[in-house]
Amino acid sequence: MSITLQQQLQHIIDHKTKPLGALGRLEEIALQTGLIQQTTKPVIQQPHIIVFAGDHGIAKTGLVNAYPQEVTAQMVLNFVHGGAAINVFCRQHRLTLQVVDAGVNFDFTSNPVDVINAKIGYGTKNYLEEPAMSTYEAIQAIEKGRSIVNQIAASGCNCIGFGEMGIGNTSSATLIMSAIAGLPVVEFTGRGAGLDNDQLQKKIDTLQQVYEKHALNKLSQQPIELLARVGGFEIAMMAGAYLEAVKQKMIIVVDGFITTAALLIANAIFMAEKHKSLVSEFTTLIDHCIFAHTSHEAGHEKILRHLGVAPLLSLGMRLGEGTGAALAIPMIQSAVNFLNEMASFESAGVSNKE
Amino acid sequence: MSITLQQQLQHIIDHKTKPLGALGRLEEIALQTGLIQQTTKPVIQQPHIIVFAGDHGIAKTGLVNAYPQEVTAQMVLNFVHGGAAINVFCRQHRLTLQVVDAGVNFDFTSNPVDVINAKIGYGTKNYLEEPAMSTYEAIQAIEKGRSIVNQIAASGCNCIGFGEMGIGNTSSATLIMSAIAGLPVVEFTGRGAGLDNDQLQKKIDTLQQVYEKHALNKLSQQPIELLARVGGFEIAMMAGAYLEAVKQKMIIVVDGFITTAALLIANAIFMAEKHKSLVSEFTTLIDHCIFAHTSHEAGHEKILRHLGVAPLLSLGMRLGEGTGAALAIPMIQSAVNFLNEMASFESAGVSNKE
Repeated sequence: MSITLQQQLQHIIDHKTKPLGALGRLEEIALQTGLIQQTTKPVIQQPHIIVFAGDHGIAKTGLVNAYPQEVTAQMVLNFVHGGAAINVFCRQHRLTLQVVDAGVNFDFTSNPVDVINAKIGYGTKNYLEEPAMSTYEAIQAIEKGRSIVNQIAASGCNCIGFGEMGIGNTSSATLIMSAIAGLPVVEFTGRGAGLDNDQLQKKIDTLQQVYEKHALNKLSQQPIELLARVGGFEIAMMAGAYLEAVKQKMIIVVDGFITTAALLIANAIFMAEKHKSLVSEFTTLIDHCIFAHTSHEAGHEKILRHLGVAPLLSLGMRLGEGTGAALAIPMIQSAVNFLNEMASFESAGVSNKE
Repeated sequence: MSITLQQQLQHIIDHKTKPLGALGRLEEIALQTGLIQQTTKPVIQQPHIIVFAGDHGIAKTGLVNAYPQEVTAQMVLNFVHGGAAINVFCRQHRLTLQVVDAGVNFDFTSNPVDVINAKIGYGTKNYLEEPAMSTYEAIQAIEKGRSIVNQIAASGCNCIGFGEMGIGNTSSATLIMSAIAGLPVVEFTGRGAGLDNDQLQKKIDTLQQVYEKHALNKLSQQPIELLARVGGFEIAMMAGAYLEAVKQKMIIVVDGFITTAALLIANAIFMAEKHKSLVSEFTTLIDHCIFAHTSHEAGHEKILRHLGVAPLLSLGMRLGEGTGAALAIPMIQSAVNFLNEMASFESAGVSNKE
């Protein structure tokens, strides 16, 4: 019987100069990265954080959001000027940051800034009244997401985390989670950027109304249609980005609440494509994902439990932008480094357990 | 009424371009580092990890340890040659690593290696039969720890984490915790580097016997005497290191199980000195400490709860060497960086909450 790669990796990990299992979660990550890259010597090359920004029609109503819609564009400019939290963390850990205009209600081209222009529209429509986008737009956004990651992979990057910016997008994420997990919206509705109790109740009522209007309970297996009804351009594009990242065998670092909603969409598409044999590998999208942190946004912990995954960090953060992913990448690097660099009991001349 | 530094720091944190509180624990750390350094612009300079190594007489009995005593010296040589986990993490994050021979049962001077020679003895005595060390040796070790950190501070370091290596030292740590917390040894006894169920029971029985023999229940307020009875040279020296680090107003990063036991000793000495007005500041040792992670060693979580502190990370690690501290320092750096580098709503032209 030949030794599998998994057994080889586990053997190497177990013979490093440390008690068996003493590096805890880092040992799991070392194993996972080796399996993703199909090698006993994984490497992290040119890690990237890609922030997808988009506006949401619902935000104009003020029914679900604490900040006005203009903040999406203002924050994109803040990213460009290097003043946001994600800029700080990417600088610290030398992660390449790219910002994508997936559909912000602002024209960045008139005064060109360093943003990837992938605009599907000037924000989605208000899903209280009509579908957020057309099916065509949802597909267009997914394809754009695939193409962006394809180019990044071609440049030599093999580890990627996604972030987002979009006032109102916790609502879209909540609706997607509810539909896919088959649980009431109240289970996943949180305070977003800072709603008080009354505002939170208004958000729950509004989302419940949207859920019923669009009969989301019937769309758990129809990710594209779900996106069209209640998605966001940045969420749709991220879903496409995940799909390309797994195709490229990248290490995918999942950030927080909204990025997990996009992952649910991507996973549903992935499973359907796999079923149709469009992907040949015996793998799942989730196997390629390292979950960075548990967001403090109520509902994130629940959806992670639903997925059966345990993130690396739990710092009470709820900022988005990919900030959790950016903080987790050095941990993943530590896992890869110990696998590659630590001495074994034999090589170091250290006595093993009696 | 003048604005306190704490209020100033909180104002700065609250006006960064992010929802209020959205950086979670990092916001607490930013505040804490500002308060430690008494500035709104804290900086981390030349962060160090100091690993104190020492041997324990009890380890020769094999009653409490999974690995033979020789492993302490072998691991010190592994540190010197760069092959241990702590080497990997220090290299990754550019932390200066220094290894101190506090009392290893091996002569490193015959074939000089890059180890600080602070040897108090060739291992402690077996506390099943007699006190581990003399009171004089305990004081000598504490003073040596102070002097080592004093020199490191003089070189420009303002952020320090301690690690340890010493086969059998979870037993010493357990006894210290039990004595100071006033709880039975079974509460803090864990598997160390990997005891099975029978071995764990033997360890508990042994430590219970030691606890009674030395009447540790009477020593909760007598840290030096406690060290003399059941301490280790590396634990005593770390206690001194903590005391000097707080005197130097350093950011202290607390690693795991054994380093927390040393902190309990240091804290008891600190409180006694403060009581005698030997320290003038209105501060506590704990205020200077950032708790890096919850060790997977049973008992660590309990003693942290006893101290009322919540570590940053929880990665299921139980390796010692300062590895948890090394992984947490980049998080502390992230906190300092966001405080210094992020734009405010005003400076970035971002609309605040409506």
